[in-house]
Amino acid sequence: MRILIVNGNTTQAITDLAVGEARRAATSGTEVVGVTARFGAAFVSNAAQEAVAAHAVLDALARLYRGADAAVLAISLDSGLAAARGLLPIPVVGMTEAALFTACMLGDRFGMIVLGRDSPPLYGELLERYGVESRLAECRSIERSLLGQDDALAERIAQEARTLAANCDIGAVVVCGVVFTGMASRVQAQVPVPLLDGIACGVRQAESLVRAKFPLAYRSAAGPAPGMTGVSPELAALSAVPPSPKDK
Amino acid sequence: MRILIVNGNTTQAITDLAVGEARRAATSGTEVVGVTARFGAAFVSNAAQEAVAAHAVLDALARLYRGADAAVLAISLDSGLAAARGLLPIPVVGMTEAALFTACMLGDRFGMIVLGRDSPPLYGELLERYGVESRLAECRSIERSLLGQDDALAERIAQEARTLAANCDIGAVVVCGVVFTGMASRVQAQVPVPLLDGIACGVRQAESLVRAKFPLAYRSAAGPAPGMTGVSPELAALSAVPPSPKDK
Amino acid sequence: MRILIVNGNTTQAITDLAVGEARRAATSGTEVVGVTARFGAAFVSNAAQEAVAAHAVLDALARLYRGADAAVLAISLDSGLAAARGLLPIPVVGMTEAALFTACMLGDRFGMIVLGRDSPPLYGELLERYGVESRLAECRSIERSLLGQDDALAERIAQEARTLAANCDIGAVVVCGVVFTGMASRVQAQVPVPLLDGIACGVRQAESLVRAKFPLAYRSAAGPAPGMTGVSPELAALSAVPPSPKDK
Amino acid sequence: MRILIVNGNTTQAITDLAVGEARRAATSGTEVVGVTARFGAAFVSNAAQEAVAAHAVLDALARLYRGADAAVLAISLDSGLAAARGLLPIPVVGMTEAALFTACMLGDRFGMIVLGRDSPPLYGELLERYGVESRLAECRSIERSLLGQDDALAERIAQEARTLAANCDIGAVVVCGVVFTGMASRVQAQVPVPLLDGIACGVRQAESLVRAKFPLAYRSAAGPAPGMTGVSPELAALSAVPPSPKDK
Amino acid sequence: MRILIVNGNTTQAITDLAVGEARRAATSGTEVVGVTARFGAAFVSNAAQEAVAAHAVLDALARLYRGADAAVLAISLDSGLAAARGLLPIPVVGMTEAALFTACMLGDRFGMIVLGRDSPPLYGELLERYGVESRLAECRSIERSLLGQDDALAERIAQEARTLAANCDIGAVVVCGVVFTGMASRVQAQVPVPLLDGIACGVRQAESLVRAKFPLAYRSAAGPAPGMTGVSPELAALSAVPPSPKDK
Amino acid sequence: MRILIVNGNTTQAITDLAVGEARRAATSGTEVVGVTARFGAAFVSNAAQEAVAAHAVLDALARLYRGADAAVLAISLDSGLAAARGLLPIPVVGMTEAALFTACMLGDRFGMIVLGRDSPPLYGELLERYGVESRLAECRSIERSLLGQDDALAERIAQEARTLAANCDIGAVVVCGVVFTGMASRVQAQVPVPLLDGIACGVRQAESLVRAKFPLAYRSAAGPAPGMTGVSPELAALSAVPPSPKDK
Repeated sequence: MRILIVNGNTTQAITDLAVGEARRAATSGTEVVGVTARFGAAFVSNAAQEAVAAHAVLDALARLYRGADAAVLAISLDSGLAAARGLLPIPVVGMTEAALFTACMLGDRFGMIVLGRDSPPLYGELLERYGVESRLAECRSIERSLLGQDDALAERIAQEARTLAANCDIGAVVVCGVVFTGMASRVQAQVPVPLLDGIACGVRQAESLVRAKFPLAYRSAAGPAPGMTGVSPELAALSAVPPSPKDK
Repeated sequence: MRILIVNGNTTQAITDLAVGEARRAATSGTEVVGVTARFGAAFVSNAAQEAVAAHAVLDALARLYRGADAAVLAISLDSGLAAARGLLPIPVVGMTEAALFTACMLGDRFGMIVLGRDSPPLYGELLERYGVESRLAECRSIERSLLGQDDALAERIAQEARTLAANCDIGAVVVCGVVFTGMASRVQAQVPVPLLDGIACGVRQAESLVRAKFPLAYRSAAGPAPGMTGVSPELAALSAVPPSPKDK
Repeated sequence: MRILIVNGNTTQAITDLAVGEARRAATSGTEVVGVTARFGAAFVSNAAQEAVAAHAVLDALARLYRGADAAVLAISLDSGLAAARGLLPIPVVGMTEAALFTACMLGDRFGMIVLGRDSPPLYGELLERYGVESRLAECRSIERSLLGQDDALAERIAQEARTLAANCDIGAVVVCGVVFTGMASRVQAQVPVPLLDGIACGVRQAESLVRAKFPLAYRSAAGPAPGMTGVSPELAALSAVPPSPKDK
Repeated sequence: MRILIVNGNTTQAITDLAVGEARRAATSGTEVVGVTARFGAAFVSNAAQEAVAAHAVLDALARLYRGADAAVLAISLDSGLAAARGLLPIPVVGMTEAALFTACMLGDRFGMIVLGRDSPPLYGELLERYGVESRLAECRSIERSLLGQDDALAERIAQEARTLAANCDIGAVVVCGVVFTGMASRVQAQVPVPLLDGIACGVRQAESLVRAKFPLAYRSAAGPAPGMTGVSPELAALSAVPPSPKDK
Repeated sequence: MRILIVNGNTTQAITDLAVGEARRAATSGTEVVGVTARFGAAFVSNAAQEAVAAHAVLDALARLYRGADAAVLAISLDSGLAAARGLLPIPVVGMTEAALFTACMLGDRFGMIVLGRDSPPLYGELLERYGVESRLAECRSIERSLLGQDDALAERIAQEARTLAANCDIGAVVVCGVVFTGMASRVQAQVPVPLLDGIACGVRQAESLVRAKFPLAYRSAAGPAPGMTGVSPELAALSAVPPSPKDK
Repeated sequence: MRILIVNGNTTQAITDLAVGEARRAATSGTEVVGVTARFGAAFVSNAAQEAVAAHAVLDALARLYRGADAAVLAISLDSGLAAARGLLPIPVVGMTEAALFTACMLGDRFGMIVLGRDSPPLYGELLERYGVESRLAECRSIERSLLGQDDALAERIAQEARTLAANCDIGAVVVCGVVFTGMASRVQAQVPVPLLDGIACGVRQAESLVRAKFPLAYRSAAGPAPGMTGVSPELAALSAVPPSPKDK
């Protein structure tokens, strides 16, 4: 099986980080390949950059999904996820989505750790869209200034996770964000409840969906509707699918 | 005062239609100019096309907002609206947002008319985001095949609006969608409750916001954060704003 | 255009304050007149007084709406608003409603400043009714003892607004309550985000609704149903409208 | 024990009907007295009339609560209920509130029967305020034209109740509205699930609250705040209570 | 009238405590009898014990409901309540349910006091199921270590109740949990708002439901469906009722 | 890896059916074993039987979880799921929970097919608890009389699934209920969207959770709290775990 990791940021190092974690989480026999956004922000950090990232994710998927059995989005807000599902004949999983649903299967409530004091509301909207906001016990944030200092960052994440485990009756902590990739397994031994990594959870969910052999080819049945101009030819072609089989 | 109408579709005729209605709705002294998306779909009709449209809207705004006092988005799902507000030092109003809030000021409940049998759930998400879903009495849809036949379309819209007025205790009907621009005023005389046009409502709200002289310059205060690559230079420059003043 | 400001309190000075702010906010050519409740509390401050104020607002509107093109309610909880809309053939706007919807068009989330430690739950119910409670970031309160000391009050409002702007990712602050009328513009220069005044927002929304020329005459089509006794003859006559056109 | 039935309509016959049912439902030893609104509509049937009824209910309570151990509101929308509770040192129960909570103790879901095709949304707001809207299985309406024809009305109510019992998994049906008073017991034998009458439920709840001897005197502790003018002297005096003990 | 108090814990002393309070709350002429769970935990304190308690409550009810006019569950989470209602031809009331609905009839908002720092989320789910979570102002907890020290416990409950009354605009405090039975009346004199005891409220609600003579026999109409094995013969017989009259 | 399938019904044939499907869905190297409830209903079909089933599920898990790496509940309402998670040091997955979260990863909305006209509300509560009720497009039911007639049942399920796919914009259909086990794969070829089987989804999720090696031993750390009496000794021992590490 072949899984495509799609980084919605333009930084190759983030792709490499995500691909590395994906390989650790995958079962033997699963091949992991990565792709980096061709345009947009080095590291998405505001709403305009996120809107462009959704386009860049679709652009990357359209060019490279052939040959892959599933895709995992390596961008914290799962940008472009719903749109990608409407286009592609293979399973597409969001890293945060996968971690959240996994957390729900480990207990009634979960905690979250995110990057940046202003991020909890953004993730609040995401949780609401997925339907799991009532299951969040508490969301704590890590200051952005720690990025790049891996030891200090790991220490802070462990500390916040222990605080969550001590204060709330939770079954897991979602360590949320592509820049935290790998941190969950790094500090797990210091925390009494499961820590969830979005990329690792995403790969495991993608593997499950591939094994189920669900029929998804109908999603990309080409239709007579005109595609887009000014975007990559692959995306233009894919997006010419009629909006729905029900209203021709 | 100068208002910029931003069409998220690539079809110039839609821009012309929207600019025409905007000019009818504007007070004397307001100048209206239009811009058409440089890339994306001729007429956005699925989620992938909508994701690209959000990028195209930001691209158009970044290039042309200078000299304008406010912008109105001429795309039914208000694509890119929240992101645009984080970037620009002028008011930005969504056409559907403006119609919905106007409807709320005309009665406890309102009706909606949308294009396409599969569209109500899409607008449901929009209403939920704006917070007004509990005020929707009923959403009815018009078949896509009527597009291009203006007389038949007008007749169908009038008929659905009368049905809504007869069945529900509503204060207004939002005639939703940029392709329906102008239809509300065209058939108003045949319907006993107010019909709302997104572009007209958007222009009136934009005028109100401009007159209030709210201080919005802080939104685009340039910061040290890196911008985007592979996008228009104007958008790259604008989006380099730090994500928030609170977490440097 | 002529706009009627309806003060649901019996204090003439509050009417004068509201009319003054309304005149500042109105465009040239708009005439503003005020009316004070004939009965009820000098300054509404509990639920029983608010119930009576709703009656007093309807009483004032019924007597004086003729000749006006729209009405704005100058009472913080928008008392009687929905009932007034069912009676009158002109637009009626609540001061808090107008400020809240305006705030929604300036950003995803807004803050609020209200009078009295026990007031936030009251406004919570109002926000829920309008549907915008999910968009409130935080509501802060000003102690009642500052009423009458305008300089100290202005200083406190500016301070709370700056706290809101610093702590939350908000697009505006609603300075809520008819006794705070004028404070928003007075302290705007000291606060980095827009401050919204209910009366000013209400006048601007009323002007927009009037300009749209929506057909509202159907609301007061006299019917055979009996009116009320023991109330003003004007209100008795107006309220004889049948409850709905749909269930005769 | 003495229970005061407060009719928010100005029709004495409705008071008589409610007092009669209240006496049937009360335990021996409970005295029931009635009072009719001094002003307002003969039978409240739109929002303006309901706003005035809330005032009339407070007016009646202020004049007559002395000597009563509890009050039950005999008006379908429980008009003035929350305000009355803030004023009076005795329990006040709404007829619809009492029926709804009683229904919740008879099963997970309940049905409702109301007067008028346009009424379900009105009751929807009431249910939302009480918090029990998720427990409503279905609300069915009876046409207004049957009022006055008691046999036909009884037959229709029985028929709708049987439909509700057959279609939904409900534990009770609330026969909602003061004009339906007495109908529940009249047709109970024809329906397989409990039918609830608001007045009967209200009296039983009022009796329970009186027997519990809850300390409520604090609600009407007179304060220095100014009362109202232009209303009955009793209401003016009562409403001079400070808005809350917490914010002097 | 005869009311059966069903203790879902296996501790006889808790049954005795509940029966004692029930007798104090009942009107003269009401006989109160108690039954203790035959299996399960001495004092239910986690989810697995609660699941077993639901079975034990049904087991006790099935064996002893004959001859009783109503039952009140003496277990804090009302374990087995909905299931019991589907089986028995008499009213069944949960102690916490009864206290919550009573609290709702004393004011817009109420406070709660529960045992154990980790309990508020458990009760949160219960409130959500009943529909009254929006009416909870605040839930405070008492440390488990005080159990058994009645004077200290009473002092702590009084203190928390006064804090709730001082901080929130509440109409009542629910003193929640079967081990707190009797505490509400013990410390009422020290607290300015009503304190509600679940057993006392449950008995009062049960008496009301019995007096209403609602037809409930249909609930236990025996059907052809097979019952259970490995449970008490009485429960096996009762549970053979068809799942619903609507889908044979 | 070894997965334990826990049938909450007492019918061995249902266990066999579930184990068979589980083996089909498992990857090679996964051993599947089944256990049947020792007491309760042959096929759970009302709330009382479901309450007993939760106990029976815990009883079976306590006796047999040792040696298993994960457990999947083979009972449609996931009875006892949350309680089991609080007791056991291995992952426990509900069959319906697993199918619902899998459906969420295949599209924005999903459909459901359940057994019995009265079942949709029961599943509604389950969806609300999991948080995914807003993602349900429509729930359709199959009449109970078809049970036992496999060909007719398969035909009806295919027909309802095609109706769901044609009417709603869904990404998957959850074929819900342990008696439908195996039907999804049997009729998949006749339906254009993925059909989800709870047992198959549950096994795949259980495998994912086992592979992640989450630390769960803390859940069953024995504590000094007393266990239960009158239940199996294994369940008594396990449930003696203190209610939470946070409130000793």
